[in-house]
Amino acid sequence: MSEAAEPTNQPPTEQPEAEGQNGPSKSELKKRAKAAEKEKKAAEKAAKQQEMAAQKSAAEVDYAAEFYGTLPLHQSQSRPHRPRVDIASLPSRDGETVLLRARIHNSRAQGSKMVFLNLRQRIESVQALMIVAPEKVSKQMLKWAAGLATESIVLVEGVVKKSPEIIKSATVGTVEVEVSKLFLISGVEARLPFTVEDADRTEAEIEASGDQFNRVLLDTRLNNRVIDLRSQTNQAIFKLQAALGDLFRQFLHSNGFIEIHSPKLQGAATESGASVFKVSYFKGGAFLAQSPQLAKQMAIAADFERVYEIGPVFRAEDSNTHRHLTEFMGLDLEMTIEEHYHEVMEMLDGLFISIFHGLREKYKKEIDVVNKQFPAEEFKWREGPDGTLKFSFREAVNLLVEDGVAREDLDDINTENEKRLGRIVRAKYETDYYIIDKFPMELRPFYTMPDPNDPTLSNSYDFFMRGEEILSGAQRIHDPKLLEQQMRNKGIDPESMKGYLDGFRFGCSPHGGGGIGLERVLMLFLKLNNIRRASLFPRDPKRLEP
Amino acid sequence: MSEAAEPTNQPPTEQPEAEGQNGPSKSELKKRAKAAEKEKKAAEKAAKQQEMAAQKSAAEVDYAAEFYGTLPLHQSQSRPHRPRVDIASLPSRDGETVLLRARIHNSRAQGSKMVFLNLRQRIESVQALMIVAPEKVSKQMLKWAAGLATESIVLVEGVVKKSPEIIKSATVGTVEVEVSKLFLISGVEARLPFTVEDADRTEAEIEASGDQFNRVLLDTRLNNRVIDLRSQTNQAIFKLQAALGDLFRQFLHSNGFIEIHSPKLQGAATESGASVFKVSYFKGGAFLAQSPQLAKQMAIAADFERVYEIGPVFRAEDSNTHRHLTEFMGLDLEMTIEEHYHEVMEMLDGLFISIFHGLREKYKKEIDVVNKQFPAEEFKWREGPDGTLKFSFREAVNLLVEDGVAREDLDDINTENEKRLGRIVRAKYETDYYIIDKFPMELRPFYTMPDPNDPTLSNSYDFFMRGEEILSGAQRIHDPKLLEQQMRNKGIDPESMKGYLDGFRFGCSPHGGGGIGLERVLMLFLKLNNIRRASLFPRDPKRLEP
Repeated sequence: MSEAAEPTNQPPTEQPEAEGQNGPSKSELKKRAKAAEKEKKAAEKAAKQQEMAAQKSAAEVDYAAEFYGTLPLHQSQSRPHRPRVDIASLPSRDGETVLLRARIHNSRAQGSKMVFLNLRQRIESVQALMIVAPEKVSKQMLKWAAGLATESIVLVEGVVKKSPEIIKSATVGTVEVEVSKLFLISGVEARLPFTVEDADRTEAEIEASGDQFNRVLLDTRLNNRVIDLRSQTNQAIFKLQAALGDLFRQFLHSNGFIEIHSPKLQGAATESGASVFKVSYFKGGAFLAQSPQLAKQMAIAADFERVYEIGPVFRAEDSNTHRHLTEFMGLDLEMTIEEHYHEVMEMLDGLFISIFHGLREKYKKEIDVVNKQFPAEEFKWREGPDGTLKFSFREAVNLLVEDGVAREDLDDINTENEKRLGRIVRAKYETDYYIIDKFPMELRPFYTMPDPNDPTLSNSYDFFMRGEEILSGAQRIHDPKLLEQQMRNKGIDPESMKGYLDGFRFGCSPHGGGGIGLERVLMLFLKLNNIRRASLFPRDPKRLEP
Repeated sequence: MSEAAEPTNQPPTEQPEAEGQNGPSKSELKKRAKAAEKEKKAAEKAAKQQEMAAQKSAAEVDYAAEFYGTLPLHQSQSRPHRPRVDIASLPSRDGETVLLRARIHNSRAQGSKMVFLNLRQRIESVQALMIVAPEKVSKQMLKWAAGLATESIVLVEGVVKKSPEIIKSATVGTVEVEVSKLFLISGVEARLPFTVEDADRTEAEIEASGDQFNRVLLDTRLNNRVIDLRSQTNQAIFKLQAALGDLFRQFLHSNGFIEIHSPKLQGAATESGASVFKVSYFKGGAFLAQSPQLAKQMAIAADFERVYEIGPVFRAEDSNTHRHLTEFMGLDLEMTIEEHYHEVMEMLDGLFISIFHGLREKYKKEIDVVNKQFPAEEFKWREGPDGTLKFSFREAVNLLVEDGVAREDLDDINTENEKRLGRIVRAKYETDYYIIDKFPMELRPFYTMPDPNDPTLSNSYDFFMRGEEILSGAQRIHDPKLLEQQMRNKGIDPESMKGYLDGFRFGCSPHGGGGIGLERVLMLFLKLNNIRRASLFPRDPKRLEP
């Protein structure tokens, strides 16, 4: 505070109350009032001078005060229509002054005159630097910028400049941004359980550091999923998840399928009562659909011909494995058959081939990002004259027996033997993708069509990726009498599924289909090793949060 | 049975047991054996003759026996790879012999020598006729064909012929199929509660018939949804439903959004506890998400920038109205805001305009089909320099007051006044589509951003079609302190939503979004008058089946 700002006089009315009833005369009062008025004006003048002096002084000290700071809470106060840019577009903007919103991925002060900020938008990042300069960037501004927490969201104005050498720590390495203004949009108000840099670190980097770096465990990630999802790896995984859905739809759309939406709330426990979640439904109860199986078959009975659905399926199975979720996304389809259920099997095969191609050709960048953290042998499939490898359940068993598994253990092929089969097949046929056809009838649900020649076998198939099942499908029974009989054989009361059975009683075309687990396909294509990594907010018997 | 087939001799060994210990001699036994052998041969010969005679006799009587009949149950016995065609393709196949699978929509015998079959595939139908002809179509064949139940699924072989005049009772009216072979693939094993013809009948037709025709009530339809869905109207409605989803995705995809899938099983009752379904979850409990609101905001906090989701939302509201379902499809989106929440509002507006255009331009045929049964004034929206009609909640209230509604009844705008407003707006501005902005804060959920100037208002909007709300959206609060405070104001314990709040504590961009009810948009665009008609298998407080 400068001296000029100090009050120069004492207050005018020192002891007005103490004068009691022998108060001052009227003229004295007038005099005092005049004096008070004079004093007031003087004080006002002094205050004004003080304010101006303070402003001047502040300006001398921080000439950049308007170029940085915390913005007021964004409530859409104004709309200047000033364009903001993406980091990905910066290489083509050399020399431009740009405005952008980004996260501070990390920052590093170099002495007291320069700070480097790594700015991040989704999977892209760029280096920004702030250098103290007269009339532009003050020491206070630099100090403030250097103090911003990692993961803060900032609004940056700066000039794009060619960087003298490729910046390896950023995805956009050919340019950097010289910051002229920096404002905080949203700060970090809690201690980060881990940084996004930690989340993105590869096992190789951690080992090379002699375990100096923080290894973020899966549970920690999932407990703090919002931060975990910001990693480059996760941004890429969920872009690929969306791509998978798009490719699924594109293929089916171009093959005459239409999308349906069937209810998840069911009046009766369907398919198999054991693994169904129960819901309180007003004064009664309901169940969560464990697949759209019945609904999509009813859509076929209603002449929809070819349908698909992308929706949640619910499984009340207390399975705590790397590949089970209690809620996952089902990619389901069902279609009429003209001559043979292999029409469906081939449609599904075409679908997968089209998905594999689409992912590899249009999303190479994302696959490469994920591979950095999850190294995997490139996913292999067969094409050309031989096409996809297909064999029967019996042949699959024989392959395992040849490899040393006891035949008596192979009434069903368990997870371990499934994986073993995957290794045998890869070694022998050089493919990670194959189909097993003709499963034993007793392993399949009641609605599966028996083989025409051998009633112990069925017109059903599973598809596999890297030795794990990703699709189960079959021709279905469209004859109501046979269906009823099979229900009774499996201990299901046909009356409990009247609406479903009616569909067949009123005539239904021969049909078949299959159900795909979205997260499983994603996990296996990318070799993520745990299905939770392929689910945005995974649900398992022990996890309902976040 | 012909006489030749009768056994001509008595069995050779009449009383072998009765002979006891004084049995026949060895020579006697040999003799008998010889006789038996002779008899056996004679019987075999007779049987063969009988069979041949039967065949001959049958051939004489029915020369067409191989051209018709019930096929064995389709179990994929063979695969001849014989192409089958769609009814829609028939006009370009004049003169061709074709094979097709279709429903018998109805049939009509003309005398004893001709039968007309109306064959149906989805929304297409064609007239087929069968005429008795030597060596081709027998009387038995004709009788059998005429006796096939409506809704039977048949495999038809026949020649496509130009019809002498346009056949009005079929959608493909320029050709007909002269049937040479007809096989039953799937019959009808229960009494149809109504026919598909009944289901498709318009109110005008029913009235014109003097109510001779069966008027199929909504509940009857929904109880027998599989048959109801076969109607042309429903085939068109659900093609339009799928189209709506496609158009939604296409627009958002081209604007940089990615699709997410958020869990429907929630650890805590979110948003408002009252209308949430409770689920038994192993030894504990869970809740069904009443919207993906929290998850999509967390995706924004996780830097996804622009996300959308198409998924079921669950509302445990005991509302038995024309526009409420307990489970419906939510089309949800959320995006970051740079300057102003109107960026989101304009994105949503662009989305709707693009959907309206897409439907009208690419699905005219389906819209026309629906309009036959549900006549509606053409849906109107504004474009050009003025663009979509937008006004504030206050202005909406004023419009209603001007129209005679008491201002004191307008703290909120109820359904009745919403519809009234729709009529006012259509009369005054010639649009069925408009936006109301700036809703009072107290009408909106806790996560809504208050207006920067008037804390009793909010940065929120609703979209309307034909006087009914189809979208609700807003800028959201991204500041954790303000969010916590608003939770407490609404009686929500912030601890119960820790995972959600954490997203904001670790920094979150300003953002906004909206949620659309798929079935409502479909119902209002087509003026179906009841939301159940826009849902494949609708769920309401009283309906969980089929």
